[in-house]
Amino acid sequence: MIFFRSDYSQGAHPKILDALIATNLEHTDGYALDPHSESAAQMIKDLIGRADCEVHMMVGGTPTNVITIAAALKPWEAVVATRAAHIYSHECGAVEATGHRVLTVDGVDGKLTPELIDNAWLEYEDDHTVVPKMAYISHTTESGTVYTKAELEALRKCCDAHDMYLGLDGARLGAGLTCEDTDLTIQDIARLTDAFYIGGTKNGLLLGEAVVIFDENINDHYRWMIKQNCGMLAKGRLIGVQFEALLEGGENSLFFQIGAHENAMAKKLREGIAACGYEFDGTSTTNQIFPIFPTEMVRELEKEFFFYDWAAAGEGKRVIRLVTSWGTTEEDVDAFLNALKKF
Amino acid sequence: MIFFRSDYSQGAHPKILDALIATNLEHTDGYALDPHSESAAQMIKDLIGRADCEVHMMVGGTPTNVITIAAALKPWEAVVATRAAHIYSHECGAVEATGHRVLTVDGVDGKLTPELIDNAWLEYEDDHTVVPKMAYISHTTESGTVYTKAELEALRKCCDAHDMYLGLDGARLGAGLTCEDTDLTIQDIARLTDAFYIGGTKNGLLLGEAVVIFDENINDHYRWMIKQNCGMLAKGRLIGVQFEALLEGGENSLFFQIGAHENAMAKKLREGIAACGYEFDGTSTTNQIFPIFPTEMVRELEKEFFFYDWAAAGEGKRVIRLVTSWGTTEEDVDAFLNALKKF
Amino acid sequence: MIFFRSDYSQGAHPKILDALIATNLEHTDGYALDPHSESAAQMIKDLIGRADCEVHMMVGGTPTNVITIAAALKPWEAVVATRAAHIYSHECGAVEATGHRVLTVDGVDGKLTPELIDNAWLEYEDDHTVVPKMAYISHTTESGTVYTKAELEALRKCCDAHDMYLGLDGARLGAGLTCEDTDLTIQDIARLTDAFYIGGTKNGLLLGEAVVIFDENINDHYRWMIKQNCGMLAKGRLIGVQFEALLEGGENSLFFQIGAHENAMAKKLREGIAACGYEFDGTSTTNQIFPIFPTEMVRELEKEFFFYDWAAAGEGKRVIRLVTSWGTTEEDVDAFLNALKKF
Amino acid sequence: MIFFRSDYSQGAHPKILDALIATNLEHTDGYALDPHSESAAQMIKDLIGRADCEVHMMVGGTPTNVITIAAALKPWEAVVATRAAHIYSHECGAVEATGHRVLTVDGVDGKLTPELIDNAWLEYEDDHTVVPKMAYISHTTESGTVYTKAELEALRKCCDAHDMYLGLDGARLGAGLTCEDTDLTIQDIARLTDAFYIGGTKNGLLLGEAVVIFDENINDHYRWMIKQNCGMLAKGRLIGVQFEALLEGGENSLFFQIGAHENAMAKKLREGIAACGYEFDGTSTTNQIFPIFPTEMVRELEKEFFFYDWAAAGEGKRVIRLVTSWGTTEEDVDAFLNALKKF
Repeated sequence: MIFFRSDYSQGAHPKILDALIATNLEHTDGYALDPHSESAAQMIKDLIGRADCEVHMMVGGTPTNVITIAAALKPWEAVVATRAAHIYSHECGAVEATGHRVLTVDGVDGKLTPELIDNAWLEYEDDHTVVPKMAYISHTTESGTVYTKAELEALRKCCDAHDMYLGLDGARLGAGLTCEDTDLTIQDIARLTDAFYIGGTKNGLLLGEAVVIFDENINDHYRWMIKQNCGMLAKGRLIGVQFEALLEGGENSLFFQIGAHENAMAKKLREGIAACGYEFDGTSTTNQIFPIFPTEMVRELEKEFFFYDWAAAGEGKRVIRLVTSWGTTEEDVDAFLNALKKF
Repeated sequence: MIFFRSDYSQGAHPKILDALIATNLEHTDGYALDPHSESAAQMIKDLIGRADCEVHMMVGGTPTNVITIAAALKPWEAVVATRAAHIYSHECGAVEATGHRVLTVDGVDGKLTPELIDNAWLEYEDDHTVVPKMAYISHTTESGTVYTKAELEALRKCCDAHDMYLGLDGARLGAGLTCEDTDLTIQDIARLTDAFYIGGTKNGLLLGEAVVIFDENINDHYRWMIKQNCGMLAKGRLIGVQFEALLEGGENSLFFQIGAHENAMAKKLREGIAACGYEFDGTSTTNQIFPIFPTEMVRELEKEFFFYDWAAAGEGKRVIRLVTSWGTTEEDVDAFLNALKKF
Repeated sequence: MIFFRSDYSQGAHPKILDALIATNLEHTDGYALDPHSESAAQMIKDLIGRADCEVHMMVGGTPTNVITIAAALKPWEAVVATRAAHIYSHECGAVEATGHRVLTVDGVDGKLTPELIDNAWLEYEDDHTVVPKMAYISHTTESGTVYTKAELEALRKCCDAHDMYLGLDGARLGAGLTCEDTDLTIQDIARLTDAFYIGGTKNGLLLGEAVVIFDENINDHYRWMIKQNCGMLAKGRLIGVQFEALLEGGENSLFFQIGAHENAMAKKLREGIAACGYEFDGTSTTNQIFPIFPTEMVRELEKEFFFYDWAAAGEGKRVIRLVTSWGTTEEDVDAFLNALKKF
Repeated sequence: MIFFRSDYSQGAHPKILDALIATNLEHTDGYALDPHSESAAQMIKDLIGRADCEVHMMVGGTPTNVITIAAALKPWEAVVATRAAHIYSHECGAVEATGHRVLTVDGVDGKLTPELIDNAWLEYEDDHTVVPKMAYISHTTESGTVYTKAELEALRKCCDAHDMYLGLDGARLGAGLTCEDTDLTIQDIARLTDAFYIGGTKNGLLLGEAVVIFDENINDHYRWMIKQNCGMLAKGRLIGVQFEALLEGGENSLFFQIGAHENAMAKKLREGIAACGYEFDGTSTTNQIFPIFPTEMVRELEKEFFFYDWAAAGEGKRVIRLVTSWGTTEEDVDAFLNALKKF
């Protein structure tokens, strides 16, 4: 069975694992109060070129989203996101469990837009309605698309006009920053958001994300929020050690290499599938692609390949999701493309 | 200034107030553990013809909705409602504050349908998604429309198929049960829902609603839920005393008389407005109507009448909401219709 | 049956009821956005001699406590109170339901002290522990005792030293301010607390309390908090109308008269009981007293009088609670004292 | 610097790390839906000799406690624990953040007793009070003590009498089960509790605990609770792989070996310290010990050793906490004992 199921089906990239092995016997203080976590945080500050922020080593994507949103919002405030956003569609109501509404709008090619944020405000009236206080986007989006610099600047401007925070879920930030058609840099993201995170789990780590927060309200007692929301790791340095290895070299680091590899493998898949005459749902240029196949063909492919049977696509057709990862090989891709030729 | 603002702009119907005056000096135990609250509960059981339920005297509509939903749902479960439903649109995120998602769908003429509930289930996958466990409707709806018996039976069937509860917000149940084109009785509602409430605040009481619950899971420790969610009144008998007066006489009681009066006043308004050539948003036949007027005309009317400037209705036009109440008089209606003739 | 069960066993004081009757047919806007609620708020500002506060008409004591505490605290913050405090002992976990710990200490004669607050801080360490951010007291306490001016000043000083809010539950403030041995005025309370409320339900109203908040963080979107926590009344003016009648005349108003009457009736009871040779639990000088009787005697008294069988008091003895109210008469008291003579 | 700070200051035991290395390149499904997690669960069922339970791979101790308690309790229910219990003292109000009170009692030598549970019930009255529904203990306790079989049986009996769940925090279960004076087996714990967990983080894993749940109410949708409370790991197999390695061999597995090693190192420390004439706080026979030293001596020791300066112990003395771990060596212990000889 060849896996295109997700970007988290294997363990860590070998260089990451090596870092864990190399540091395994060190004694450090717990709860991310250790030199590796500090060093990783500093590397991130250096990479984005800003010192006026806090960086925390986080255990996973959902805790990072939930804790950041809960830290940002007062009880009567809501977060605006697309209906497909991970925080709405795949976190089992975790944001609502902290008491806050995820105010949904239907995204455009997976993205939030200023117009959609304005629409969310149409529901606002007075003390009978929640206050939309944060817009939350993903980069790449859940559809594999990416924001352009102009789009992110427009969102920032819209958020400023509404006195809203802008948060960014970077679970697949590595792929987002390295896709061929993007003009958005991590420095731009640092400039334009109030909080974002650098995804590790889907970019070669065993586990872990690094959240970067610029706003002082969100930063206030953030570690208390981590602990209270079940997100603090006793051996917290594990995340720090991995991020050190991931980010060593800055712009040339493994972080960007893995993103580029994922995208390259996905591109090869995408072009091969297109060459066979199949279409796609959406316009992803990153490591998630959504080809459309006849249902019977999907059933055949499932015998050899493990992927996500995503959605119906009209009579007798299905959209499937193929995801590439740090460990996806040319051979994996060739196997899939060869399989297509049987049909 | 003549008020068509809401059905709660005056105090209590005089007969209700008389009951409070008559019982004022009685000593009873607190927290609705008194003979009046018990008697009112029994009158409701008699009216609906069922003894297999619990009836609680509640302080208001939002607490009744919130407590019933929170009592019904486990942490990972959600309630399905239209985007216009009061629990989503006008309770300041109170349901989410108890940790549960309000899973919204766009209603049809203000109503939820089995198809919409099925659509809500399309978002469900597995342990990454909340479980839609309750459908929650209003009768009358927030648009003033009413469910037919067939529609409510279809919702019940759909809920059964999905193993869902069906709850009904009866803030305006009096108007709903007495509108000229309804075939739905309070006995039907008692037969087809797991919980519903009889609205008092918008039907002549100073305050108070009576919730009727058939499901044993929802009933479990319901009074603890009332207390924990700030809904328990020390002088709880106030609600019981008022409901005794409201429901005295059963099918011929003040409860139905007030509903019928509200609808009659609204019908006179509606027909008078239509006779002047204006149109309406939606098809309400109850005590909320939504005429469409030129914006300038709305601005003029606001000088004499207090109503809700509801929404835009295309270029240069506004939808307004007019609501009639137990205290609305023929003179109030005539004044509004006469005012129309100036334009 | 003669009631010494609580201060909320009857309806409203006749003058309060008259005010409701007199205003019943007025039309006003809902949700406490009406002239009566505004006027009552202004009367309170005048009474305490401060304009730099917000005053809200609240539906009951538990919602007032819960909403004020939840408005004050961030997710990682806790409220410190005695184990007997109403917010811990009789609100069914309502504060915890908003996500906050009630950090309890054992009170001294019902009261919180600076030493006890310091003790609460001993539990604090770092990001693994909640931050005690608010001290919450009752005046009168649940034991019927009152704080002296010096005691309240010491609590204020202690709270300042710890950067804590000081909140005061004034469910029985009327009795507290009018008891014979107090040196604490409502102006003192306004000067020394960040938020307090004037209890109406236990002081002659049908229902309702008025909360006064000085701190801008607690005031921020307080009405949104009221709505979200089920505490907003549609016919909100009911509370305003009653407080107008209660506070008319300021220092000579019905509010103080009722408190004084309650205390006078309790004093007569207390002295009569003491004259019969019985002792008391605690040192209450207000409208709740806690005599100790042989258990058999308590069982006899229960046949004629309705009171709270409070706690065991050693072998064969019980503490009971007797509460006087606006409607308690000399005859009620005499009947009880006469009953004692039978034993 | 030699670490006696905690049992989580190093990475994984080498055999655990080897297992991660060996499986690193495998592709599996995420979220603990993989063969390793299944196999580890089965090994646990075999070890305890019961199949009628669910076993989940958990990311850490706090999430395990919080999710299990939140899964067990309805909104009006509380968990009873000692004031020193981790869920009260070191989880930053995480249980309360899910809406539930931690009802505290003062433990006896770190332990909960039937009498203390009975005392907790004294606070219960009616619908104004939360219902104590679960007792939650730690084994070893936060004081390093262990329950005897008779004590645990008595707690079970008490919980049955009160219709309460009994949950057990096994963060240090390995040390608890292997200490020299215990008569309690893991099979006993499985027989006497409704839920318990086998701690991995403090017993040689990088991270992870395995929770075992017997009660069907707690098991209901437990994975949804994990996800909603931020406890689901994308590469969930990491926990499974580690537990396979930890439990290989059952009663002779690394799990018990590590516990025994920790206790042996602690015993050597304890006996050495006692031989120097110092006393201890409490009666721990496991891997946390609490010697009492003069304050000045503590300040000196801190220069070479990293430990927890625990509490004051009378004039001029401090209790410190020394913790041994899988990686603690005889040399570490000797170094400490030699250092004592300087004083």
